[in-house]
Amino acid sequence: MKSFLTLRSVDDVLDMIGEFSPLPVEYVPIDEAAGRYLAVNFFAPEDIPGFDRSTVDGYAVRARDVFGASESSPALLRCVGNCPMGATPDIILREGETVSILTGGMLPEGADAVVMVEYSRPIGDNMVEFIRSQAPGDHVLLHDEDVKQGQLAIPAGRRLLPQEIGLLASLGQTQIGVHRRPKVSIISTGDEVIPFHEVPSPGLVRDVNSHSLASLCRNEGAIITGNVLVRDDREKLAASIRDGLEAADVVLVSGGSSAGMRDYTVEIFQSMPKSQLLVHGVSISPGKPFIFARSEEKSLIGLPGHIGGALICAHVFVRPLLQRLQDAESHIEPQVQATLTRAVVSTQGRRDYIRVRLTKKGNVWEADPILGPSGLISGLVQANAFVVCPENSEGLYAGQDVIALLLR
Amino acid sequence: MKSFLTLRSVDDVLDMIGEFSPLPVEYVPIDEAAGRYLAVNFFAPEDIPGFDRSTVDGYAVRARDVFGASESSPALLRCVGNCPMGATPDIILREGETVSILTGGMLPEGADAVVMVEYSRPIGDNMVEFIRSQAPGDHVLLHDEDVKQGQLAIPAGRRLLPQEIGLLASLGQTQIGVHRRPKVSIISTGDEVIPFHEVPSPGLVRDVNSHSLASLCRNEGAIITGNVLVRDDREKLAASIRDGLEAADVVLVSGGSSAGMRDYTVEIFQSMPKSQLLVHGVSISPGKPFIFARSEEKSLIGLPGHIGGALICAHVFVRPLLQRLQDAESHIEPQVQATLTRAVVSTQGRRDYIRVRLTKKGNVWEADPILGPSGLISGLVQANAFVVCPENSEGLYAGQDVIALLLR
Repeated sequence: MKSFLTLRSVDDVLDMIGEFSPLPVEYVPIDEAAGRYLAVNFFAPEDIPGFDRSTVDGYAVRARDVFGASESSPALLRCVGNCPMGATPDIILREGETVSILTGGMLPEGADAVVMVEYSRPIGDNMVEFIRSQAPGDHVLLHDEDVKQGQLAIPAGRRLLPQEIGLLASLGQTQIGVHRRPKVSIISTGDEVIPFHEVPSPGLVRDVNSHSLASLCRNEGAIITGNVLVRDDREKLAASIRDGLEAADVVLVSGGSSAGMRDYTVEIFQSMPKSQLLVHGVSISPGKPFIFARSEEKSLIGLPGHIGGALICAHVFVRPLLQRLQDAESHIEPQVQATLTRAVVSTQGRRDYIRVRLTKKGNVWEADPILGPSGLISGLVQANAFVVCPENSEGLYAGQDVIALLLR
Repeated sequence: MKSFLTLRSVDDVLDMIGEFSPLPVEYVPIDEAAGRYLAVNFFAPEDIPGFDRSTVDGYAVRARDVFGASESSPALLRCVGNCPMGATPDIILREGETVSILTGGMLPEGADAVVMVEYSRPIGDNMVEFIRSQAPGDHVLLHDEDVKQGQLAIPAGRRLLPQEIGLLASLGQTQIGVHRRPKVSIISTGDEVIPFHEVPSPGLVRDVNSHSLASLCRNEGAIITGNVLVRDDREKLAASIRDGLEAADVVLVSGGSSAGMRDYTVEIFQSMPKSQLLVHGVSISPGKPFIFARSEEKSLIGLPGHIGGALICAHVFVRPLLQRLQDAESHIEPQVQATLTRAVVSTQGRRDYIRVRLTKKGNVWEADPILGPSGLISGLVQANAFVVCPENSEGLYAGQDVIALLLR
């Protein structure tokens, strides 16, 4: 069994991920763009709303005409019409005049404020009393108050959420440039692994990793180009990796829990075109046997055989890689501040990812470490978050305040 | 203009949402089930891994045969073969015997522990020295240690994440029962609103809400059955709502910023089969004009016209409704503990949702309230979270510790 070259730190690996180039840009309809990452800065092509708009139901006025108005000393104006919704009012407001207006209506020329209907009193003969003073701009949304033409409306790298889709719609964008989805090929290995729809005889287990990993990658916008199961056979594994590299941007080799298979994986990675072995072992637990290589701009990843290590490595490395390939801006990991319910022991120089179950006790979140080997799938299902024990620490103590990162 | 009946509290509305019944169950392939909610408790049909498995590369032994072994006093055993991967070893281990085994291999009968290869020393003639003592069970994963047949493996209501998909695969489930996706029909109203691909003349604005809302609903697993734009016309609106109710589980009417349109909406909701008006106005800001009715098991929702109020109501009410229809268990909202950078004023008796921009300063998150009217789409795009100012408070002070709920 070959030993690990040099264990890399988690941060080293993340730095290497940062050196990959984003994928090419493609244009997609905005209604299909949610969750994708904006490829280039989007500058507003026009003002929003584009005209001075009332924000209430009431009367458009010249503010100076109602200056000082009050219940005891109302201002009296002549109502000369109403502002139609969705059109330019054909009225120019003159001294002593008002027009009725609805929320969202366009102010007529001459008007600079709106009085809410609650402070108006029609007294017949088209005359209206106003019992409140207004300043210019009151209850008016100016033509460029929401968005100004030319302003940076959405920065490149932003994940497009419902509000960004709305902003693009309001500016008439039917399509938007995003980085194309990363393609991922998943290869599961192991003589003891059978497809999940088969019944294992003793000694065999069903393929778990490829289903979990596919689901995690799809969450990050990836397309799964293939999902194959390869026996511990060097030539077949090499052929599958070559095929994967041809079809996909990222090849994930999972399993191969035997030492021999791990060596194959490294050697095959190294034999790929212009390949460069970046990482062979990370000071992380679980997940130490992580392998990372590049072949030109494509990524080759060997994940630990057991699902615990494979999924933690996928969370810690594969997700950031898929985000990097889409040029995602840095973002906030969903998290909860919690109190650890029992001590956990770690090893200095290694970053530990501790599975925890969060529960709320009154106003406080408690993070209960999941006991048992990290390789169990049941432990991951019991957990809903993990807590990081950093390299410079020998553990966390019971009652310690921790940040629990939510599993997604 | 009709006044609001009685303003309901946010919690009242959430309680009403809890009274809706979940949608029927459908069976989907597990690789398409990620993000869906498990419909019934899933009990493990078998043990995992199903056989006693080695967790390391090494030698399977009877623990008592290496009891007390050390560097200075090694135990000497005869290697009688190796355990094939993926099959039952055809060996029964007797006193003084060992077999080589790889990670994931099945232990032979008679063996009860594995010694890591690092602590073994083949000395020729099939004899192996062991320099470490082991207890029974060391480096062995027992046949039911991960999952025990009959145990509750995944509770109903759980959102299926990569690890749950993996667990289902490991237990040979090809399909799984989840509540079917809620169908949502979106109706935008307003004489001033035009489709997003058209160029507005002055006084007109493009439809923003329906694109934002569709995106938010899809994030919660919904299928958008229709997305129509209706002028301020009572008959046409009634027809669209009837059509929506026929096709969908939830009808969202957005816009209708004019008071008249709001009245139409309430009256039309009330005219639907077996309808019951639940809410007409909520003590929330933004979002006060929220309307909520049910027609048998279907929901009718009127959202405020401006996008700020519409999206907050969608976050606070529509998302929980869509989750309820899928019988989602209660879950943790992604959040960050932050320090508010400036004071915000609220009104007692009302729950305020304050848009904030989170930035990290050293180890602390700062939540910077977004200024300007809540109805602006740009303010929502600037924000990445919101902070709740509760009903019993008149505001939040600068420097206050707050929970910022991440926008998604």
